Order: sequence, then C-alpha cells, then structure tokens
Amino acid sequence: MLPVSLRELATRLGAELVGDGDVEITGAAGLEHAASGDITFVTRAALLPKLAACEASAVIVGADVEPDRPALRVEDPYRTFARLLAALAAPLDRLFPPEVHPTAVVHPEAEVADGVALGPCAVVGAGCRIATGSRLGAHVVLEPDVEVGADCLLYANTVVRERCRLGDRVILHPGCVVGADGFGYLPGPKGLSKIPQVGIVIVEDDVELGAGTCIDRATTGTTTVGTGSKLDNLVQVGHNVTIGEHSVFSAQTGISGSCSIGRGVTMGGQVGLADHVRVGDGAKVGAKSGIHKDVPDGGIVFGYPALDIRESHRIAAALRKLPELVRRVGRLEKAGGQDEE
Amino acid sequence: MLPVSLRELATRLGAELVGDGDVEITGAAGLEHAASGDITFVTRAALLPKLAACEASAVIVGADVEPDRPALRVEDPYRTFARLLAALAAPLDRLFPPEVHPTAVVHPEAEVADGVALGPCAVVGAGCRIATGSRLGAHVVLEPDVEVGADCLLYANTVVRERCRLGDRVILHPGCVVGADGFGYLPGPKGLSKIPQVGIVIVEDDVELGAGTCIDRATTGTTTVGTGSKLDNLVQVGHNVTIGEHSVFSAQTGISGSCSIGRGVTMGGQVGLADHVRVGDGAKVGAKSGIHKDVPDGGIVFGYPALDIRESHRIAAALRKLPELVRRVGRLEKAGGQDEE
Amino acid sequence: MLPVSLRELATRLGAELVGDGDVEITGAAGLEHAASGDITFVTRAALLPKLAACEASAVIVGADVEPDRPALRVEDPYRTFARLLAALAAPLDRLFPPEVHPTAVVHPEAEVADGVALGPCAVVGAGCRIATGSRLGAHVVLEPDVEVGADCLLYANTVVRERCRLGDRVILHPGCVVGADGFGYLPGPKGLSKIPQVGIVIVEDDVELGAGTCIDRATTGTTTVGTGSKLDNLVQVGHNVTIGEHSVFSAQTGISGSCSIGRGVTMGGQVGLADHVRVGDGAKVGAKSGIHKDVPDGGIVFGYPALDIRESHRIAAALRKLPELVRRVGRLEKAGGQDEE
Repeated sequence: MLPVSLRELATRLGAELVGDGDVEITGAAGLEHAASGDITFVTRAALLPKLAACEASAVIVGADVEPDRPALRVEDPYRTFARLLAALAAPLDRLFPPEVHPTAVVHPEAEVADGVALGPCAVVGAGCRIATGSRLGAHVVLEPDVEVGADCLLYANTVVRERCRLGDRVILHPGCVVGADGFGYLPGPKGLSKIPQVGIVIVEDDVELGAGTCIDRATTGTTTVGTGSKLDNLVQVGHNVTIGEHSVFSAQTGISGSCSIGRGVTMGGQVGLADHVRVGDGAKVGAKSGIHKDVPDGGIVFGYPALDIRESHRIAAALRKLPELVRRVGRLEKAGGQDEE
Repeated sequence: MLPVSLRELATRLGAELVGDGDVEITGAAGLEHAASGDITFVTRAALLPKLAACEASAVIVGADVEPDRPALRVEDPYRTFARLLAALAAPLDRLFPPEVHPTAVVHPEAEVADGVALGPCAVVGAGCRIATGSRLGAHVVLEPDVEVGADCLLYANTVVRERCRLGDRVILHPGCVVGADGFGYLPGPKGLSKIPQVGIVIVEDDVELGAGTCIDRATTGTTTVGTGSKLDNLVQVGHNVTIGEHSVFSAQTGISGSCSIGRGVTMGGQVGLADHVRVGDGAKVGAKSGIHKDVPDGGIVFGYPALDIRESHRIAAALRKLPELVRRVGRLEKAGGQDEE
Repeated sequence: MLPVSLRELATRLGAELVGDGDVEITGAAGLEHAASGDITFVTRAALLPKLAACEASAVIVGADVEPDRPALRVEDPYRTFARLLAALAAPLDRLFPPEVHPTAVVHPEAEVADGVALGPCAVVGAGCRIATGSRLGAHVVLEPDVEVGADCLLYANTVVRERCRLGDRVILHPGCVVGADGFGYLPGPKGLSKIPQVGIVIVEDDVELGAGTCIDRATTGTTTVGTGSKLDNLVQVGHNVTIGEHSVFSAQTGISGSCSIGRGVTMGGQVGLADHVRVGDGAKVGAKSGIHKDVPDGGIVFGYPALDIRESHRIAAALRKLPELVRRVGRLEKAGGQDEE
C-alpha cells in the first residue's frame, strides 16, 4: 500500500483528506516512533502536544481533533491506523513460504490439505488433519491425531500434543505448548503415582496463544479456550479449565485445574487462580491478583488475596496509615491509663 | 481394556460388582464429563447429587457410598479409576514410535541402547548415553555428555544441556530446559562479567518436569531434583538448588539460587523463594507466597511476605477491618480531646 | 589450565602463593561442593568455619583472610575463581562444533559469515545476516531478515522472529523467543481484532537472555534491550519496552508494554510492571513487587502495590501487630463507653 501520496491513501482508506494531498507517505508509526515520511495517528485532543513534537508527515485524526499538518479524518483513527499496519507487515509468504519444505516430516497417514505450508523440519504425526490455508513454521510438532482448522498460523517450535484440536484462524506463537499432561497424582506408599491424562484441549476459532504459553490437556474430557480469546506469553492453563469466548489474559497469568472462566473476562498479568474457581462473564481481575474464591459476573477484583477492587483500594490506602495508627493507639492507651499490652 | 461388560471389568480390576453386570462400558470420565457408556467414580457420599445428574452408565464407589446405578465397589475409587485411565491413554508406540527416525541426528560417539526411540530430528550429542526403554520425541536436543536413564519420556522440543544426568523413568514435557546456565555475574568496570556455570543438573528417578520448566545448572557442583518430585509447567529452579524426594511444585513457582528444599514439600503455584532459603521436610507453602526466610520442617506458610498460615489468615481477616479501624481511632481521639494528627 | 600445581597456578593467575606450592589442583568448586583436589575461594573471614569443614586442597583468599591450608592470595578472590571456572567449562567447540551441520537449512539469500557454526536442523531464513564467530545450536530458528552480530551464542531451540537484530556477543538460552508479536487488539463488533505488530526487537551488545524468556516486537518502532543487560529465565518483556544498559532482571519478571526501564536497574524475581511505567536509572525493585507507577532514579521499592522500601517494611512490621491492634481499639472503646460498632 506504501509508499503512496496522502491523497491516494485517503481514497484507499475511505478517509477525508485535510490539507496537502501531495505529501508522500512511506511508513506508519505511533507518535513516539514516527519520523519524516511516516503517517501517525491521534485518538484525542490531549495528545496534540505530543503530535507537535513528532516529525510525522501526516496524521490520522477523528472528528474532534484539529490537526497541525496534512491529515486523514476518519471515524476511528486507531482502527484505520491498524489497517495501515497490516499493509506494512511482512507478507505471510515471506514468513511462511507457501510450500511443504523438503525437510518437513509428514506421516503417510496424515491428511494435509492442498495449499498448507510446512516449514523446515515441521513434523506432522500419524492421523493428523490440517485444513486449507494453515501454515506451520519451522520445527512445529503436531503429535498424532491432532486437528488443525483453516488459516491457522503456528509459529516456530510450537508443539500440539496428540488428539488436541485447533479451530480456524488460530495463532500459536513460538514455543507455545498445547496439550501437555495435566498435573495430577495420587499419593501412594512409594510416592506419587501419575493419574493418566487422557482428555484433550480444544482451542476454538480465532484464539491467539502467546510465546511459551502452556495449555494442559484434561484428565478426562476437555480443556477449552473459547472463540476469540487471547492469551499473552507464558500463561499457564491447567487441566479441565474452561475459558469462555473473547476473554483476554495478560502475560504470566496462571489458571489452576478445573477453573471455569466466563465470556469477556479480562485478567491482568501474573494473576493466579486456585483450582475449581469460577470467574463470571465480563469480570475484570487486576494484575498480580491471587483468586481463591468465585468472582461474580461483572465483578472487578484486585489483590492478594483478591477482594472487590473498591475494598482493595480502601485497604491499600488505610495500610499507609497503619504504622502511624499503631502509635496513635499507643497514645490513646497512655492517655487513658491503659498499658499498651 | 475397553469396551467391556461391567462384570468383566469387575473381574479384571478385582472389584465387587453391584447391580447389572451386563452394562457395556465404552469409556471412563470424571463426573463432569461422563456420558452414557462411560464409567465414572465417586469418592464420597457428598458427591451423590452430582452423580445423579451424570449420565454415566456405571460408577466406581468405595465401601461407604450407596450407588444409584450399576457399580464397582473398591477400596480406593480414584486409584481404580486411574488404572482405567491408563488403559484409555494413547499407546506409547503411537506417541513415540519404537524406532530411530531417519532424520534423527546421533553423534557417532554417543551410546544409545537398543530399543531407544528417537523421534524426527532428535539430536543426541557427542558422549551422550541413553539407557534402554527411553523415548525421545521430535526435536529433542541432548547436548554433549548427557546421561539419560532407562524408560524416560522426553517430549518434543525439550533440551538437556551438556553433562546433565537424568535418572530412570524421568518425564520431561515439551519445551522443558534442563541445565541452562545459572544466573551469575560479577560487577566490573565495563559492566557485568559472566561467572561460568560449570556444574550440572541431576534429575533423579521418577521425576516429572512440566512444559516450559527450567532447571539451571550449578555454578559448581550440582542442582538436584530428588527422586519422585513433580514440578508443574513454567517452574524456574535456580543454580545450586537442592530439592528433596517426593516434593511437588505447582505451576510458575520460582526457586532462587542455592535454596535447599526438603522431602515431601508442597508448593502452590506462583510461589517465589529468595536465594539461600531452606524449606524443611514436609513443609507446605501457599500459592503466590513470597519466601525470604527459612521454613521449618512441617511448617505451613502463606503470604507476601510469607508468615505462618494462622498468623497470615488472622492478618488477612484484620485487614478487612482496617479502613473502619482508622475511623474508630479517629472517633476515640475526638472523644478524648486529642487531635487526629 | 588444570590439573596443575598450586605454584604453577599462582604464576598463571598472578597470585601470591601461600604455603605448599606442590599441591596438585585438579578442579575448582564453591565451599559447599569442593572436594579433595579442588581449589575453592573465600571472600571474607566469616566464612572460615565453613572453609574448615571443606575438603578443598587449596583456597583463594584476599588480603584480609588468613587461610588454614595452601592458598593463593589475590585482590578479588571471587573474580579470580571465576577465571578458573572459565578454564573448566566445556570447550565451545564441543557445545557448538565449528561447522555448518549438513542438516542445517540456510536460505540461499542469507549471508552467513565464514566460521559461523550452525547446529543440526538450525534454520536461517531469507535475508538473514550472521556475523563472524557466532554459533547457533541445534534447531535454532532465525526467521527472515534477522541480523546477528559477531560472537553470539544461540542455544538450542531459540527463535528470533523476522527483522529483529542482535548485537555482538549476545547469548540466548534454550527456548528463548525474540520478536513474537506484541499483545495488542482493538475491540470490535465481532470480538477483538489484532493490531499488526510491525516493529522489531533490538538486543544490544553483551545482552544475555535466559531460557524461555520472551521479548515481544514493537507495534511500530522498537523494543530494546540495552547493552550488557542480563535477563534471567522465563522473563516477559512486552512491546515497545525500552531497557537501558546494564540492567538485571531475575527470573519470571514481567514488563508490560511501553515501559521505560533505565540504566543499571535491578529487579528481583517475579516482579510485575503495569504498562507505560518508567523506572529510573539505578533503581532497585524487590522480588515479587507489583509496580503501577513510576520509580525515580535510584529509587528502592518493594511490595504489592510497591512502595518505597522503608515504608513497605514499616507497614509489614505494623501488619503483624494489626490483629492485636483491633482488640486494643475494642478495649479502648469499651473503656470510653463507646460501642465497638
């Protein structure tokens, strides 16, 4: 899409041109990185001072912002900017060349649709099925009987264990592991004995799992990541967890076994959940919270142990008064003739 | 073992048959996933209402539970159920075909016992020794001079660095890293200089290490994970740590360098230990605790910073009264004619 | 360098010989692991009792310590010991044989300098450039257009995504991922839509990144890890983060998007930072802290939420008095004729 004149870009993006349409746009970048030749974007008037200090040649703005340079006016500047970024991304054919690399190892009993791309040393086990348009990077390993839907992207060094299923348009980032054994043991006379983990993982459509993220298979039945959910890097999801649709977990969060997470749930980073906890639809969990009891639909919790966020903030504020409070109580006791202890 | 009649299953498992022995059992699943044809299990009478709502065709119960459908009565229902699960698991020969894959790269100076399975692109370095019955998945990398005992399972993409040693029946899940350099530097005029990490890791018999878990090699000497210990996913163990036998760490826990963890220790998820801490035999550490001083044998601690769990719970309860306590002290001061500050 | 007589070792290390120079030194180990034949080291007199219990044949000491056995006296015992360890480490040529392994997959459009070592199944994408002296282990994947400086070590199973750049002498430990997509989405009518992440990661000279550590690429512009910084295992760095020179992060720490970390910053393990936080030069952040606002240059903070460490310690001390404080306030109210609530 680039380089292109601002006038031409306005046409292609369906935007209103403001100012000089002859400016040539060679790139796109956020306010903090944009240089001459770039187009940037501003979502609200409060950012205009930052824009003034930015060397971008043009800016994408909304209805309520008056730009200080040639601009495109659109309804949703960030969304329009994201469309531009897509045009700047490395083409998929460069990242995942449209071929089956000669070093890929495909089991004769696997079904790989036409047009599936397999990178160097990718391994597709017996009984696997990969639908059209999916691309597996270098060293991706599908253990036997895995199903991969259409138009998935599996980056280098991801592993999907036996019988797990990915929907359509799933993205797995490097080092992601789907379907490792859940963590289950029975105590016995000679130590712990392993409870076989014979369930699977189902990753539904449009899910994205970050680098190093691990989703354990169920003991029996399924661990499920619901449609459209996005999990950042190094997230842990235990066996038999159910995650609803369109939920978002930030990095390094951990969900213990058999938790049930609703639709549209947001979790900050490094959150931890005890096992068998239910988090309701639309709930929000603050970063680093430790959850050991259910969170209702729409609940907003924070802290360790986590409480309703308003109570948690009141306690945090009161805590800063605590050392002085100890002294104040001592003075009261002295004034009242009481011993401190 | 399945499908089979319930009567035949009773015989094979040494269980007492209760009710109709002709029911055909085609699978096994927990209460929440079991469907018609499955056998499930119930460990205590309190779960009978859940059983009533479950479509399982049969149930495994103990002496004290009266089943509402055809059943097997045994001493330990969960243990019997686990035996059944083992029969349902994918056969090892499907997950780790009993062969040396032609793409495996075995150094001519490595000693690989007969019957060892090596997956596609597995790499066995110079001087490695692998004992009989062990199976390495696709893309497993053994750096030079690694020793692997008998009947180990190393899943895809695990890495064991040079000279480290695994005992017998060790399981490494995908992406596990054994023997990366410990984190040690000396400050100097041009920044930090690396302290070479020349020790090793010893992983003893029957240890299981989760997906993405990292055990660092010692600076000198050994980092040790004791017999039968089980570490969940994304756990970090620093250099020169010693973990005793039969200890269990949940996911995302981190043990800093030179800690000494006893036998039979249980740690929840996301626990963190400062360096050089000693945790005594049989101690229990609550999830997300931050430990910066020793925990005695049998100690039960929780919190950040961690305290004895009873004190920790008393403080957590008192914290919820703190905002009101601040107001109460203000009222007392006013009543006594004292200024609040 | 070993085995060698202590006299000869003194000469090679430029140390003063104390006692019998004929002792043969066959290894080197810390106080807790040293055995007969080893040389160990002691940094301060307080460790002499531990030395007395150690079977080392010789010891490296500083000016202020009187050894109880043959010794080398030097200015900085730990630094001298580290020099010895380097001599004991496995030779690089054993870990990374100086060759391009025949199973390595090098794109014809990549530029690989003479003398670069590529391990089994290493993958070098189109447009990559690798400078002299760098060594890539087994299964390392460089996506297209990656630049690797001179004398880098990339251990097995590391992944560097497209267009990212590593400086000279960078070390990536197994499973490290550089340049996965940042975590950015826009809400929309059909769920979240992905914001393309078209920026890169720049890892400057002398940086070391631990096993399983993930550094996300920028949305636009760069995520930067500054010269000489060291990140331990399983660390997460979000998109558009800037880390200054010579900063040190312990394991499992997570830095959210767009944070700015100064020079010489030290973070303990399992620290978490909210997005857009600035941490000033030389700041120190205690283990497991949760940071949601800026930390000034030289600041020392601790806790969740993090506070100045002195305040944080005062609060932690006062917390242990809180349950009793609740009772004391109750007694005061009773004495004053007030109802407790």
